[in-house]
Amino acid sequence: MKHTNTDGAGSAIDFYFDFISPYGWIGAERIGSLARRFQRGVNWHPFLLKVTVVDKMGLPPLLDTPLKGDYVRRDLPRSLRYHGLGLAEDPIFNFSSVAAARATLWVRNVAPQKTEALVLSLYRAHWSDRRNISEAETVLDIVAELDLPREDAGAALQSDAIRTALREEIASAVTAGVFGSPTSIVDGEMFWGSDRLDMMEKWLETAGW
Amino acid sequence: MKHTNTDGAGSAIDFYFDFISPYGWIGAERIGSLARRFQRGVNWHPFLLKVTVVDKMGLPPLLDTPLKGDYVRRDLPRSLRYHGLGLAEDPIFNFSSVAAARATLWVRNVAPQKTEALVLSLYRAHWSDRRNISEAETVLDIVAELDLPREDAGAALQSDAIRTALREEIASAVTAGVFGSPTSIVDGEMFWGSDRLDMMEKWLETAGW
Repeated sequence: MKHTNTDGAGSAIDFYFDFISPYGWIGAERIGSLARRFQRGVNWHPFLLKVTVVDKMGLPPLLDTPLKGDYVRRDLPRSLRYHGLGLAEDPIFNFSSVAAARATLWVRNVAPQKTEALVLSLYRAHWSDRRNISEAETVLDIVAELDLPREDAGAALQSDAIRTALREEIASAVTAGVFGSPTSIVDGEMFWGSDRLDMMEKWLETAGW
Repeated sequence: MKHTNTDGAGSAIDFYFDFISPYGWIGAERIGSLARRFQRGVNWHPFLLKVTVVDKMGLPPLLDTPLKGDYVRRDLPRSLRYHGLGLAEDPIFNFSSVAAARATLWVRNVAPQKTEALVLSLYRAHWSDRRNISEAETVLDIVAELDLPREDAGAALQSDAIRTALREEIASAVTAGVFGSPTSIVDGEMFWGSDRLDMMEKWLETAGW
């Protein structure tokens, strides 16, 4: 199924990610330029893996999974280096990504053209610079560094509206079938994993196969 | 950690796979030529995902996992086509791969130079031609098609020795940290998934990064 806009560009790519997922970071670093190559927009959808993986799928968190957890600890830094991204020496793995997710929903509303920049700044701050984005103050510092209004963001992060928005965002991700980070959906086709982006690129080049 | 043989070629690639895994098929189709490119041998290690995923990791089988199962049903034929492999129209997903795994261990002992051919013939027969390799007779037909001694194979498949060999093979896969199909280990570095083979190729080209 194809959607095309009247200006000839295709429909946007829906990009689902959780800040606790460094593979989501790899995807976030790549998705913008990939989308621009095909004249697509990106809809940035933060979600919480805890809800999809632990609650909906009944699985343990990735790093707590026997055998697989050990593999991921090895594969992660290797995969990040492969994409030119540096992992902090002692990265913070278990943290709440709620504040960062809410900030993303806020910027999407008030300054959508800065969404990509905020997502990348949050990811890099946490995983490369070891700034703990589970803390709202750190998230707001990063908001301010992008010349976005810190106080407005601070108020938004505490608002009922943003709580509801995140809950609805996660529910619609699950409805779309999303379970892992990152996941991209374009033209009705879902690609899970930063390691499926090459395939998605090929899919867009050839309009499927 | 590097191992090199006296002839200058590197150590063999340990390739772990389960015939029930079509992603293992993609890996099996690629690993031989990849290894030859780097003057490596391939050690073919059949194992049973049921033991690693269900018993050791405590996870449900892939296709029975909520959300992920639906994704895999979509991703599989797409990934196979991407690699030029055709999936049968109504493929048999749930089956016992014990007979095929035992046949692989048998050929590895009696005619190691035919191991790759047998593995590929078994994979193609099941997933492309819809011949059910859970049946020992089908496995033996394929053995015979490769001009291997069918009666010897039939006796071996029933032997205590081969049962023990498969149990030991699986135990040593788990000890090596293997949990998914396909998994390749080369020079002490593990790569899980057919979608990590490009990265492994790069790893071998550059001796790591």
